[in-house]
Amino acid sequence: MAKVAVLGYGTVGSGVYEVIKTNQDIVNKNAGEEVEVKYVLDLRDFPGDPVEKVLVHDFDIILNDPEISVVVEVMGGVEPAYTFVKSALMAGKSVCTSNKALVAAKGPELIAIAKEKNINFLFEASVGGGIPIIRPMNSCLTADKILQISGILNGTTNYMLTKMEDEGWEFDEALKTAQELGYAERNPEADVDGWDACRKIAILTSLYTGLNVDYEKIYTEGISKISATDIKYAKKMGLKIKLIAYSKRIGDGIVSAVSPLMLNKAHPLYNVSDVFNAIYVEGNVLGPVMFYGSGAGKLPTASAVVSDVVEAVKTKKNIEVVWEDKDLELKDKGEIVRRFFVRVSGEAAAEEKMIKDIFGKTEVVKPEGINNEFGFVTDQMSESDFAQRYKKLEGAIRFIRLEQ
Amino acid sequence: MAKVAVLGYGTVGSGVYEVIKTNQDIVNKNAGEEVEVKYVLDLRDFPGDPVEKVLVHDFDIILNDPEISVVVEVMGGVEPAYTFVKSALMAGKSVCTSNKALVAAKGPELIAIAKEKNINFLFEASVGGGIPIIRPMNSCLTADKILQISGILNGTTNYMLTKMEDEGWEFDEALKTAQELGYAERNPEADVDGWDACRKIAILTSLYTGLNVDYEKIYTEGISKISATDIKYAKKMGLKIKLIAYSKRIGDGIVSAVSPLMLNKAHPLYNVSDVFNAIYVEGNVLGPVMFYGSGAGKLPTASAVVSDVVEAVKTKKNIEVVWEDKDLELKDKGEIVRRFFVRVSGEAAAEEKMIKDIFGKTEVVKPEGINNEFGFVTDQMSESDFAQRYKKLEGAIRFIRLEQ
Repeated sequence: MAKVAVLGYGTVGSGVYEVIKTNQDIVNKNAGEEVEVKYVLDLRDFPGDPVEKVLVHDFDIILNDPEISVVVEVMGGVEPAYTFVKSALMAGKSVCTSNKALVAAKGPELIAIAKEKNINFLFEASVGGGIPIIRPMNSCLTADKILQISGILNGTTNYMLTKMEDEGWEFDEALKTAQELGYAERNPEADVDGWDACRKIAILTSLYTGLNVDYEKIYTEGISKISATDIKYAKKMGLKIKLIAYSKRIGDGIVSAVSPLMLNKAHPLYNVSDVFNAIYVEGNVLGPVMFYGSGAGKLPTASAVVSDVVEAVKTKKNIEVVWEDKDLELKDKGEIVRRFFVRVSGEAAAEEKMIKDIFGKTEVVKPEGINNEFGFVTDQMSESDFAQRYKKLEGAIRFIRLEQ
Repeated sequence: MAKVAVLGYGTVGSGVYEVIKTNQDIVNKNAGEEVEVKYVLDLRDFPGDPVEKVLVHDFDIILNDPEISVVVEVMGGVEPAYTFVKSALMAGKSVCTSNKALVAAKGPELIAIAKEKNINFLFEASVGGGIPIIRPMNSCLTADKILQISGILNGTTNYMLTKMEDEGWEFDEALKTAQELGYAERNPEADVDGWDACRKIAILTSLYTGLNVDYEKIYTEGISKISATDIKYAKKMGLKIKLIAYSKRIGDGIVSAVSPLMLNKAHPLYNVSDVFNAIYVEGNVLGPVMFYGSGAGKLPTASAVVSDVVEAVKTKKNIEVVWEDKDLELKDKGEIVRRFFVRVSGEAAAEEKMIKDIFGKTEVVKPEGINNEFGFVTDQMSESDFAQRYKKLEGAIRFIRLEQ
């Protein structure tokens, strides 16, 4: 029998407890032995909850119990999660976590300890919630040079953008509704400013390069400036605005960023709506593959965590993960070549010459019911070239990148 | 250094050779040691081809060479592949195959030998070409009771249906073009009659139930009866006709079938076009996930085979696969409840009473330019109930199932 301790009885923690109970037979069969939650650690008490009889408040009980072979960390945040996880690994216990902040900040160190101790540090649920992506990256996409990963990695913002698109809502209304439905936190910055997606693309990029990507060096722009008016322009062009986290090989380097992008109908992420996530991967021999599913939510995330527990119990030795404690030097995003959508105040006819002088060939966009301003789309140019030109534009309101 | 032998230098075999050469550094890094193709077995000679220097015609050279630790079988067909694979496994060599006929026919026996010998029998490329699905089923979707798998598992027929939809082609024209492009064989029955998809859904269903599914017991209907007229009706209803292989939990049993289904726009497989494949999986806690990519083609399939080689080299011990040599009793598909689309000769107005008497509530469909016949869609009913009623229908032309 494999005995497991769960750190944190919040949304995901209670989901883990529930998934193991609900699917006990399947979990046992796949793990090759019975899996039992012996402890749940939380500062709070839960009188009347079935978890009560296994609840502990002191991590040392778990750390010092030699029966515990797997620790599930679903507390979130770097501390005290890091201290707990590190000491569990040092004590020879495998750790399964959904904590992207921890993985993005301390991944290589924790992976190295697990390797040394011949156990596992697994983090399937840290990216894409229930979508299998970490293990496929490690064990399936191993014959390819990965050319790019682009993902809708944050369900909250994807829900908000879907509602703005479908209902014509402004950002504030979408955020309020997302908060009422429990999709967005009261402090929604991690989601709407792109930091959640940024940590996730840092993890994925580290995995396919084998080097550590410092998420703080990834250019990150959220959706808080996206307005109902921007969406009207996108609709007029047959495009959708999505918050995309991506990393791409350009020449011999890699560029990574998070930003709103306007996608056309042929783009594989165009149809990913509501709280769903999807990760598009392109390999040099494999071509395109896409993984789609519930990117968040109690049970889907818990399902991924429990699949890690099954893997840890079943494997009983270290599964090699190549993620060295050596920083990957990201290339500047200025080298990316794409088209840009720009909003300008004034009338298209009056400004035509100035725009042509600055940007060369452009296509003007003018949706019904938008006055005193217009939009245009540039030809292909590099980000740095665009930035130079954009500076010269009088009356510029804002710009949004187009994805080919 | 890991030495590999490749059985068969056809499309996939030459792809495997090319992928290992092209991505040698990545393959070595992920495998943890250098991977070298020492032999390629084929009856033919390939003068001037780089493979010439490793080409052998006698399988015993491979079998008796203790340096060979991994055998790649990409010959196709059950024999002589089965004899070669079995003897390689018995000799302690891991086997990686793309051969769905072999896996569907002999899976449990070969898995059992690999387990006994503490090596691996891997078959990622046998379903979905380059799409990672076998390993995710085995190592990611392990915390869930799988409620259904539905897939577009055959790229040739999906290409044909896409062309019939986009260009208004008849079946014969679509088939001819698919053959000219090399997507369809000269004898296209395995694709167009659904047998290829049938073997693949049998493999996936065996993996999630842990029991053996006899593919011959799966109801299988291909696309050869689908006409440009059927597609016109589907378009009129906003639906697409796709060849879907599925298995679903109904009560305490499982139903599996392959047939054309009419999908609505909200269905996750609706947008999967051309030669692409996709597999939709629903878990009881995970909810929906979908895997999408190139379901066939030399390099994508070879990429999946080489990822198996990497896994075999890296793992060096048996990875447990639960697929017992005990048949799963499939339930009769008569229990599936759905709507049905029916074409009838005559005029809707004249036949209204008869149809109402037989089927109760229906919705009539009458696309422009189709004369002397009409279509209608039934309410929800079980397959067996529908079959009883359909028998009574005078002037029935054909029916196609609707997926909710």
